[in-house]
Amino acid sequence: MKIITIGREFGSGGRELGKRLADELNFDYYDQEIMDAITEKKAHTSGYVESAVAFHAWRTFPLAFHHSFADEHAIHTNELIAQKEVLEEIVKEGKDCIIIGQDADVILKKENPFRIFVCADLGARIRRCMERAEGKEKEFSEKEMKRNIKRIDKYRAQTRELVSGSKWGQRDGYDLILNSTDWEIKALAKATADFIRSWYKD
Amino acid sequence: MKIITIGREFGSGGRELGKRLADELNFDYYDQEIMDAITEKKAHTSGYVESAVAFHAWRTFPLAFHHSFADEHAIHTNELIAQKEVLEEIVKEGKDCIIIGQDADVILKKENPFRIFVCADLGARIRRCMERAEGKEKEFSEKEMKRNIKRIDKYRAQTRELVSGSKWGQRDGYDLILNSTDWEIKALAKATADFIRSWYKD
Repeated sequence: MKIITIGREFGSGGRELGKRLADELNFDYYDQEIMDAITEKKAHTSGYVESAVAFHAWRTFPLAFHHSFADEHAIHTNELIAQKEVLEEIVKEGKDCIIIGQDADVILKKENPFRIFVCADLGARIRRCMERAEGKEKEFSEKEMKRNIKRIDKYRAQTRELVSGSKWGQRDGYDLILNSTDWEIKALAKATADFIRSWYKD
Repeated sequence: MKIITIGREFGSGGRELGKRLADELNFDYYDQEIMDAITEKKAHTSGYVESAVAFHAWRTFPLAFHHSFADEHAIHTNELIAQKEVLEEIVKEGKDCIIIGQDADVILKKENPFRIFVCADLGARIRRCMERAEGKEKEFSEKEMKRNIKRIDKYRAQTRELVSGSKWGQRDGYDLILNSTDWEIKALAKATADFIRSWYKD
């Protein structure tokens, strides 16, 4: 079973990269929205996680921008436990997959995932977020966006430290760190897919 | 003109990667030994840098392990100036090239180089260095090797800070960070060459 994990700075396009990479490689794809939805339903229905994972119920989930700010909430241990449970269910399913965030690289360490981190210059991240937010129900000024980005990245770094004691986004924790600043994500996904094919061939 | 710069942790195989990448892409290749030799001769012969670069005098230089410890010396401003001069001469020549170390990514920033950094787990770096040192004139114990590695990395970080004020090996200073721990450098070079071809195509 091949697992690729993707950590990312907010606004770096890491999630889109993951989705496209999953398409390129024909891997399953999981991100926070998908896992949250699985966890939430699970509270009401026993066996839901297993069947959701097995039947790919999440395939129909769109990539939704406004959901990304869900990251803002405080760190709740219960959520982390639920997250871990879903991750383990995904592993049990045994299908090659890409997992965005969730500190999956740390939690699933013994599965030996290929660990990617995506970063970009702050200016590029603000631009990307402003473009994505256009026409959405809530508009942000550039200044607000910058504040959001920084807050979310801080939250991600904190969660990671809580989960693993290791530093978020530092080179020694990853197999590949990509700077998306000057890339179209589509082209970056193709280039990265080639790189990863070599990795699994080697 | 395409310039690829490679920063690296000592023992990560960054130099070998650069050499192989140069072969893969048919780029010129420069590292510290080559540039030192050019600088040294220059002191005696006016016009030497220009002709050395132009006539590829360095092509015959072997990759020498023991030279790597040349990094140990203190930081001399004169050397940095000489280095810069050679780098500028290389740019003037206008041929696609790969430059190892020398803070070339910072010094040649306006040439918009593709900036790679290569890292690896400390254990892997010690192993690689021990293998390379085998049968050489000076043998190191594992402990000595570890100390050497740390000293050289510290030196590199310091030089970089002196030259640029920016941090060595931090994700925001590079386009691509590669962890060579679990790769054969030959295979990594092929995968990286593919990635870079996509970059220049994009």
